[in-house]
Amino acid sequence: MTSSSGSPERLVVIGGDAAGMSAASQARRRRPVGDLRIVAFEKGRHVSYSACGIPYLVAGDVSSPDDLVARTPEQFRELDIDLRLASEVTAISLDSRSVTVASQGSSYTEPFDQLVIATGGTPARPDVPGADAAGIHGVQTLEDGIRLLSYLDRHNPRRAVVVGAGYIGLEMAEAMISRGLEVALIDAADQPMRTLDPDMASLVSDALRGLGVDLRLSTPFTGFASSGGRVTGVHVPDGTLPADIVILGLGTRPNSALAADAGITVGATGGIVVDRRLRTSAEGVWAAGDCVEVFHRVSQRPAAIALGTHANKQGRAAGINIGGGYATFPGVVGTAVSKICSHEVARTGLTTAEALSAGFATFSTVTESTTRAGYYPGALPITTKIIAERTTGRLLGAQIVGQEGAAKRIDALAVALWHGMTVEEMTGLDLSYAPPFAPVWDPVLIAARRAAEQLATLRP
Amino acid sequence: MTSSSGSPERLVVIGGDAAGMSAASQARRRRPVGDLRIVAFEKGRHVSYSACGIPYLVAGDVSSPDDLVARTPEQFRELDIDLRLASEVTAISLDSRSVTVASQGSSYTEPFDQLVIATGGTPARPDVPGADAAGIHGVQTLEDGIRLLSYLDRHNPRRAVVVGAGYIGLEMAEAMISRGLEVALIDAADQPMRTLDPDMASLVSDALRGLGVDLRLSTPFTGFASSGGRVTGVHVPDGTLPADIVILGLGTRPNSALAADAGITVGATGGIVVDRRLRTSAEGVWAAGDCVEVFHRVSQRPAAIALGTHANKQGRAAGINIGGGYATFPGVVGTAVSKICSHEVARTGLTTAEALSAGFATFSTVTESTTRAGYYPGALPITTKIIAERTTGRLLGAQIVGQEGAAKRIDALAVALWHGMTVEEMTGLDLSYAPPFAPVWDPVLIAARRAAEQLATLRP
Repeated sequence: MTSSSGSPERLVVIGGDAAGMSAASQARRRRPVGDLRIVAFEKGRHVSYSACGIPYLVAGDVSSPDDLVARTPEQFRELDIDLRLASEVTAISLDSRSVTVASQGSSYTEPFDQLVIATGGTPARPDVPGADAAGIHGVQTLEDGIRLLSYLDRHNPRRAVVVGAGYIGLEMAEAMISRGLEVALIDAADQPMRTLDPDMASLVSDALRGLGVDLRLSTPFTGFASSGGRVTGVHVPDGTLPADIVILGLGTRPNSALAADAGITVGATGGIVVDRRLRTSAEGVWAAGDCVEVFHRVSQRPAAIALGTHANKQGRAAGINIGGGYATFPGVVGTAVSKICSHEVARTGLTTAEALSAGFATFSTVTESTTRAGYYPGALPITTKIIAERTTGRLLGAQIVGQEGAAKRIDALAVALWHGMTVEEMTGLDLSYAPPFAPVWDPVLIAARRAAEQLATLRP
Repeated sequence: MTSSSGSPERLVVIGGDAAGMSAASQARRRRPVGDLRIVAFEKGRHVSYSACGIPYLVAGDVSSPDDLVARTPEQFRELDIDLRLASEVTAISLDSRSVTVASQGSSYTEPFDQLVIATGGTPARPDVPGADAAGIHGVQTLEDGIRLLSYLDRHNPRRAVVVGAGYIGLEMAEAMISRGLEVALIDAADQPMRTLDPDMASLVSDALRGLGVDLRLSTPFTGFASSGGRVTGVHVPDGTLPADIVILGLGTRPNSALAADAGITVGATGGIVVDRRLRTSAEGVWAAGDCVEVFHRVSQRPAAIALGTHANKQGRAAGINIGGGYATFPGVVGTAVSKICSHEVARTGLTTAEALSAGFATFSTVTESTTRAGYYPGALPITTKIIAERTTGRLLGAQIVGQEGAAKRIDALAVALWHGMTVEEMTGLDLSYAPPFAPVWDPVLIAARRAAEQLATLRP
């Protein structure tokens, strides 16, 4: 595993968050410094932190940015990983097998034998008038979160407008509610959470409105009002929403430009194409995290899904492979979970629209149940939607909206989906039962049973 | 589906709890009264209640015995089910195709074409001196629960001794703590919960002692002390534990005597042998619930497991089959869950001892994690044990001890077990992640990962 000269092989990692640093750590675990030299470049000042934790930092649930940091730069350096902060890789050359690095106003090249591209996602930023006003915040990086917290502390805003009603938008709406702000949440779509079917999303709308959020759907925004360089409002079709602070939660797309510019294959999703072992189209070049596209095991198509747990798994697998082991990322089924105040939302697989788009004929059922036995204190409502293939009854997707104890049930459905179970087969699953944890038929089993009964009526 | 005479076929159901009444209801759903006459015999005065809810009734978490009743006798009668309470079936004759019924001091026979045996479990009762004293309570039936509540109200006991540290014993210990009693919990075994490995059970012991329970293991009891006909203590090897009330939680065995006496095959577990459709060895005779033995999908052996969720599924399947449909009970993987105050315990599959007994060579790993991201408020400890096959890494069992949010994770493991996944395969599972719900590697994934790493070191 050493280079031909007998000197250590050189691994360069681009991106110091979950995927990149997992890859670096795993490679180091398997190969000592005399065998593998590791240089990691991070354009920001923080590495290996939980970006998913930023809403909770902003809400005040997490007291310090340091709490979100899994490992400090010093800890990586102790592992003999040459971590360089505030260092942005601006180009990859496959011919010369080197990267160009911009740092402190100058640039240099760094050679590699193996390369890991872990450049993450690029947040969608609106190209509208006034978008450069102070008080308009993205929440992608830890630096974004720290800046936002500082703005909140300095200006004590009263009215927040959150733009985008996806996961991050909802979590930021919760954070603003927790801090006592008035919150408007706007989205161009006619439902929040486009990863849910419309009927399930409408339960989320109800929950949001119940929390006092001024939810405005089918509401694109056309620009920002500002005064003295600070944002004062968000222009929407029927006027201007007053805003002392604006938070952008418009989602991200894979940050694959660097790879594409180097001639590495990028897929139709915008993500870098990798195989099961996280190898890109270029020899010795690996990619992991939000910048790649993954295999969706249900649609059997590539998908770009930005999620920390995938980034960690992919980084780990890439690192094991670079380290001389064998590890794969076997694809996703599209599981996700979120919370807004006391409401929980989860999904796995395909929505009805996604299933139709992938060519499936579908049917679906929605069932109401409770998180515990109905007579047990703290039994809370849970609504479960099952989407299945019309001819075979094969599970294609599931969605849950409920309260405490509801959402994590998606995992049993995700494992069932992983194995291509039919709803009929699922009715037999041996899921745990005791009154503090479930009705005698767990909501997952009730949902499967109703779907199986529905299927029987569809059959000729 | 009608009998040869053209008159309605006659279905007799023995036992009016979950299994029997599910069977009756499902059969009725599919066949009108002109096609199927249904008579159900229940020896007690209550039907279709949650026996699993009794500890919570006793604790005061559930305010009335009526809350535990899923359907009243009147509701069944409205479905044209001829439900006869306080009516005990004392014999089954396959030759004459009739049952003998004892009711109100006399007896009669009732003919059947189809028969469902749903006689449930028989609680183990100690055959020791003094066992007939007042204040010694079983908690199997709703009547038991009502009697116990009445005793508590009338005598206001201060010291409870719970005999047997299995699920019911732990739940009753919790109930007594909730009511403010001093609680001693004794068991002849050297660990509580024999359905767990000793190391995991020791976490339960710690939790019980932390709750102030006087837990005495390796402590068989030899009899009861009483005064004026009321229990005053429990004799154990090193003396007598004072007791104003004693609760027996010694488990149950399948109540299969009626079936065995009729010549219907009973297995080595003591449970009635049934096939996937719940058919016994006798034509037209079905059985469901705690009185049957089931196929354990991991050990591939029969097992007798008393659990309401199995009873419901089995009764439903039997009823669908009697109704002319097709439904099966595909076996169990041994999933169970319990709570004692803020502690949660769950298990699925085989313990190490069970796996060894079934002929597997095993290895195991124990991992510590948290129920939420470590930095998120309310992140609580969770310990996960994985038991896997030594050569293949195939999951054989899993156990969880933790606090709020821990135990229901067993379901994802139970579905993985259902499909014979290896620990290596499980590391790729797409389980839900967001900081309020899990660390970026869910405890289930961490456990699988550690087990996969452990396996790699075992390979030659």
